[in-house]
Amino acid sequence: MGSAFDPNVTTTEEPAIVDSPPLSNLTQEELKRIAGYKAVEFVESGMVIGLGTGSTAKYAVARISELLREGKLKDIIGIPTSTTTHQQAVSLGIPLSDLDSHPVVDLSIDGADEVDPALNLVKGRGGSLLREKMIEGASKKFVVIVDESKLVKYIGGSGLAVPVEVVPFCCDFTRGKLEELFKEAGCKAKLRMKKSGSNGGGDAAPAVTDNGNYVVDLYLERDIGDLEAASKEILRFPGVVEHGMFLGMATTLIVAGKFGVTVKDRFG
Amino acid sequence: MGSAFDPNVTTTEEPAIVDSPPLSNLTQEELKRIAGYKAVEFVESGMVIGLGTGSTAKYAVARISELLREGKLKDIIGIPTSTTTHQQAVSLGIPLSDLDSHPVVDLSIDGADEVDPALNLVKGRGGSLLREKMIEGASKKFVVIVDESKLVKYIGGSGLAVPVEVVPFCCDFTRGKLEELFKEAGCKAKLRMKKSGSNGGGDAAPAVTDNGNYVVDLYLERDIGDLEAASKEILRFPGVVEHGMFLGMATTLIVAGKFGVTVKDRFG
Repeated sequence: MGSAFDPNVTTTEEPAIVDSPPLSNLTQEELKRIAGYKAVEFVESGMVIGLGTGSTAKYAVARISELLREGKLKDIIGIPTSTTTHQQAVSLGIPLSDLDSHPVVDLSIDGADEVDPALNLVKGRGGSLLREKMIEGASKKFVVIVDESKLVKYIGGSGLAVPVEVVPFCCDFTRGKLEELFKEAGCKAKLRMKKSGSNGGGDAAPAVTDNGNYVVDLYLERDIGDLEAASKEILRFPGVVEHGMFLGMATTLIVAGKFGVTVKDRFG
Repeated sequence: MGSAFDPNVTTTEEPAIVDSPPLSNLTQEELKRIAGYKAVEFVESGMVIGLGTGSTAKYAVARISELLREGKLKDIIGIPTSTTTHQQAVSLGIPLSDLDSHPVVDLSIDGADEVDPALNLVKGRGGSLLREKMIEGASKKFVVIVDESKLVKYIGGSGLAVPVEVVPFCCDFTRGKLEELFKEAGCKAKLRMKKSGSNGGGDAAPAVTDNGNYVVDLYLERDIGDLEAASKEILRFPGVVEHGMFLGMATTLIVAGKFGVTVKDRFG
């Protein structure tokens, strides 16, 4: 796996087995838990911590709470990246604040939907990319935790979407502009709809983010190439609020896979 | 005045007196009307027209309606840039549509808060910059109409604000980031508040845009230099939706001043 990664990303532990049972017997859920717990080893007392959102990040949040209760961590302030994580952290008794009060975050821990060899990420398939990007962008260190299924050769390479948060006003116009922008990569841009109710029917209505916006999902057939250039072009559209590519933000990647837990630092 | 303008912006009429009375006797309001009427000379039957917002643009909208009633214009479709203009156009009987149905606009006409020598604009002090930018950015031609008080040597040079539309989430964090970005230009960034009611009191609450966002006003003491670079830096902040600098978008500028009406084309 290491050989598929960028040469300027050094591997500090490869592989570093952190649990005694052979990881090959573990489920994806257990791998997520192991990655989440490993990330919390970076947390120190007194830190302001960005608390991620999603199925992997929730294990890190739970672990921080556990260490606070055990007295092994003290004076932690959490900055939740979504209303969901806010609720989880409140229920676990983690003291919380926000970026207005704490504009500098010591460390953020979050999952990702895709990670490319240069540690660029796709995030926000869960719909909270904007808050995540604000908080993780304000962090001195950003530890990304994934199971190995999230590693891709290029952004969009999993066949799943790169999400773009857009204003509702003339969102189909913006959708069309995005599709056109990446037409050479075979892009299909689709307005994300609410999941239909348990009756399987229901009205088709656009999914709404925490900020009252819509999401356009970009499905890419091929590599779009220069990601920084693509980011600028996307953000130039007035109807775009933010996109789910997190470029040059991750400082550490923790991957849990069958052969162990691997920790990679961007700055070796 | 022409000498203050960029050499690659050619002046097609300078000065071109369009009304017989000496313009030096006219009020600012009358100058706005003259500029608005002059812009409508660019409108042809069958066009899709972006209808601007504000005290100058309203004269252009009224003039289009007048020519439709007189039968001098036919088959016009208006794309309003705000709810206010939508209401004005409906009351005047101008047929309307939106960008979703008409993604290409033939011509937009709108005012501006500032115009620099290269025809870069500041817009959105009235709070509808995002819709204006979407529609005017989709226009083949964009005619800007101002009275001469709007001409500045550099963006921000009038001492009035450059507005930035931001998401409400952690808006003070975003405000601080914007102020820091332009600190070398002596920037003060202020969250725009609602105007207090007629009782002069009332609660201080943030002003809300058509899209449910807030506005941070940037007051600049000095020229910020490279506007394209500044634009990219502003848009990079996740909490920023859009800013009020309209760079390289205006194709024609109509200025009404004491000495007549001047028409400048970006592409001579």
